[in-house]
Amino acid sequence: MTALPTLVMDPFSIKLDLEEGVMHDAKNHLVRCASDMRGYYVDKAALEELIAEGNDPVHYEVFETPVPQAYGHLMYCVSRLHPGKVGDEFFMTKGHYHSIVGTAEVYLCLRGEGYMLMKTSEGRCKSEPMSRGKMVYVPPCWAHRSINTGREPLVSFCVYPAEAGHNYGDIAQEGFPRRIFERKGQCVIE
Amino acid sequence: MTALPTLVMDPFSIKLDLEEGVMHDAKNHLVRCASDMRGYYVDKAALEELIAEGNDPVHYEVFETPVPQAYGHLMYCVSRLHPGKVGDEFFMTKGHYHSIVGTAEVYLCLRGEGYMLMKTSEGRCKSEPMSRGKMVYVPPCWAHRSINTGREPLVSFCVYPAEAGHNYGDIAQEGFPRRIFERKGQCVIE
Repeated sequence: MTALPTLVMDPFSIKLDLEEGVMHDAKNHLVRCASDMRGYYVDKAALEELIAEGNDPVHYEVFETPVPQAYGHLMYCVSRLHPGKVGDEFFMTKGHYHSIVGTAEVYLCLRGEGYMLMKTSEGRCKSEPMSRGKMVYVPPCWAHRSINTGREPLVSFCVYPAEAGHNYGDIAQEGFPRRIFERKGQCVIE
Repeated sequence: MTALPTLVMDPFSIKLDLEEGVMHDAKNHLVRCASDMRGYYVDKAALEELIAEGNDPVHYEVFETPVPQAYGHLMYCVSRLHPGKVGDEFFMTKGHYHSIVGTAEVYLCLRGEGYMLMKTSEGRCKSEPMSRGKMVYVPPCWAHRSINTGREPLVSFCVYPAEAGHNYGDIAQEGFPRRIFERKGQCVIE
């Protein structure tokens, strides 16, 4: 006799370093450097200078250990966005919609200072400040990008429906309606 | 002319106290005291004594700010399980299945020491230790209960599909196949 195959997945746990913003034993470790961000910043010359003379620094890292991309499962990741600027514009993530656009994402900020910038395909745009202990709810249909306006990594724990997928949609071409700069020592949303 | 009604919900943020395990401005604050836990512990006399002479102490609190209970949304909460014992058995939550049983839940432990105890309706049982920085993945179909084996609150940030719902199922009658006790100063799963 053989046992019936189990369709129920076993529980598991993962250790996170909540201060550093690192997932130990992550199966996937996405790293985006300055050279991956061409086309995203206003000051293209400053970006090229950062790549050539700044040794193409890391912009952000995403750590995840995937689960089945099926209804009922939840994907989770640690996002670690480094501090820095391209010209006057603060380091940011590319930003994305979900492929299944009507799915939300929860961001729990664990360290750092910054913003979640969100837009809909109809042109609405909103921002929420992020700092340790702030949970930002990105509702269904909002593209979302995080921006680090501080001097240390902006670390978040993120959860979204596992079937959601990523879609860069119009972001690479159109960006977001607003950008975040440092002007005279102040953080300004323009 | 009137604007078309928007079906897209606005983003928002919530402040959490990650150390204390409190959600500021939570809309829902569930409090379970010892008297709410009748039928859950082995030592019924010890529970009655705790209620009568221990002033019916708080067992656990859940803070949440609800979103629409619809596909694509994510419910999130802060769970704060107080330290203590009923006889030799550590304080625990009632535990629940989801009403839509094939939905997962993510627990990120922020403080304290304990276990996530999980079972399926077919009688499988698993446990995962919890401590600061541990993320426990409760896959679809697993009932789950947390147990505080430490001396301070066991605080977790939890996320699950908003349509999942709660179902106490067979738990009130049958409990979980295992329990966690302090025996001679040691934490023991029996």
